[in-house]
Amino acid sequence: MTALQLLGKPVAQQLRAETETNVAALRHRGVLPGLAVVVATDNEATLWYVRSIARAADKAGVRCTVVDLGAGAGAEEIASALTLLSADEDVHGIILQTPLPPGVAADELVAHISAAKDVDGANPLSLGRLTVGQQAFAPATARAVVEILEHYEIPLAGRHVSVVGRSAVVGKPLLQLLLRRDATVTVCHSRSRPLERYTAEAEIVVAAVGRPGLVTGAHLRPGAVVVDVGTNVLDNGDLVGDVEPLSAAEVASALTPVPGGVGTVTTALLVLHTTQAALQLTEEPASARALESRTPS
Amino acid sequence: MTALQLLGKPVAQQLRAETETNVAALRHRGVLPGLAVVVATDNEATLWYVRSIARAADKAGVRCTVVDLGAGAGAEEIASALTLLSADEDVHGIILQTPLPPGVAADELVAHISAAKDVDGANPLSLGRLTVGQQAFAPATARAVVEILEHYEIPLAGRHVSVVGRSAVVGKPLLQLLLRRDATVTVCHSRSRPLERYTAEAEIVVAAVGRPGLVTGAHLRPGAVVVDVGTNVLDNGDLVGDVEPLSAAEVASALTPVPGGVGTVTTALLVLHTTQAALQLTEEPASARALESRTPS
Repeated sequence: MTALQLLGKPVAQQLRAETETNVAALRHRGVLPGLAVVVATDNEATLWYVRSIARAADKAGVRCTVVDLGAGAGAEEIASALTLLSADEDVHGIILQTPLPPGVAADELVAHISAAKDVDGANPLSLGRLTVGQQAFAPATARAVVEILEHYEIPLAGRHVSVVGRSAVVGKPLLQLLLRRDATVTVCHSRSRPLERYTAEAEIVVAAVGRPGLVTGAHLRPGAVVVDVGTNVLDNGDLVGDVEPLSAAEVASALTPVPGGVGTVTTALLVLHTTQAALQLTEEPASARALESRTPS
Repeated sequence: MTALQLLGKPVAQQLRAETETNVAALRHRGVLPGLAVVVATDNEATLWYVRSIARAADKAGVRCTVVDLGAGAGAEEIASALTLLSADEDVHGIILQTPLPPGVAADELVAHISAAKDVDGANPLSLGRLTVGQQAFAPATARAVVEILEHYEIPLAGRHVSVVGRSAVVGKPLLQLLLRRDATVTVCHSRSRPLERYTAEAEIVVAAVGRPGLVTGAHLRPGAVVVDVGTNVLDNGDLVGDVEPLSAAEVASALTPVPGGVGTVTTALLVLHTTQAALQLTEEPASARALESRTPS
């Protein structure tokens, strides 16, 4: 058996079509959607990733501003940049890109991102709202997993999903998105031993730990669907996921590739979220709209 | 085999000792800790529960104010009560008691409880902070489960815990507390069928759904530890949990009773949290303390 490849490209295309509709609606309001990415590193891989977000935004008609504070930026400087951008009417989406300089913790700073502009779901308030089922942006990577599964019509309700990884960026928000879709979810991590105890019966396995080859065919139930969130750069420069693709493909029915899977969808979601934030932030008050609709044309 | 009873009483006693220490420290600062419970119902069971909280607070030297807005209160009235209490220097803990009047949703109102006074972890911001590992009060019922397990020295790290119930009040915050203690956690719910698929291998099963007798011996692995969060009032007035105690006790190694288990601990935690909030809210700034410690006596 060789597993079906769940490519990210057609999923991203569908999301870009949605973005296009939003950009047109915003243009009608005279609004140019704006995304700001705050960067404080000279890590080449990170800067490459930020440029890829900027390119995707640009292609979609979303203005992307990279606020580069340099690898020597301090926590206060970053916090005040986020506060200023939160108040800036021309900015509708804000991302704080990691890694940050040594000693600067992202998890304290993200509270300075206005929840309405928190397009990568980093502020704890966004995570809390997601948990209780209120409106909030989910972290783009977590949502990308669900978008791929839904695009390929893989049912979630009543299924057992094993999420390997408990990060605040992927594992924990993904759990909320899966529970909302009536999946039964097991959250595994480095202390879950043996790992196959928690993955071998699951219909869907999501690997989101950041360890190359952690999940192999031996961890899977025949016919399982596998989503690989890992993006690990090997010493030789190769990009690989958390799943060992050869053995997994022998057992799984479907598998997302790395690269070309989750990452492709994540970038498209960041741009889509920015247009959704812009629509919400520039919405006319309900009373004004009600008045308009009562005015005879 | 008959399961050991995991009584709440000794756990509550230990928490009350901690509360006593806090109250003494607050007295030293000239602070009387204050808890406010906002009520908008004439449901007799609820009012009885609120009186039991007030009694527990009173015994511990914590002033409890019941703000009874009546069964006809509207959302705005409740929101402004919560906002006023959040600004009141004599109030250190705030609880919004459910049920609320028909058409009034608690989940929108709890955002008006200051996170620093949110002693029952109801504000989405508290849930988000709990998720990312920042300081926040956990919902008292969720924390009560963990307090009982830790009191009876039941290990959590590396164990499989199956949580039946995905509410924002118990299941979801409990999951965070368990993950932080390195348990592997499965969250089950009404769409998890058959339920025993997700409970029969777990070392610990927590039932938090609100359905009498949902979990029976047939759902359990021999020797499992079972925590019953359910508090269901039957037509004949009896209070029963979500676990069928006779069959469960035949298979489990330990089981919390209802009543006398989780509920007993929950009330003690609400009072303890109020004293912890009072300590944090009335703490002298670090600089002032540093200065003091340098002053020779």
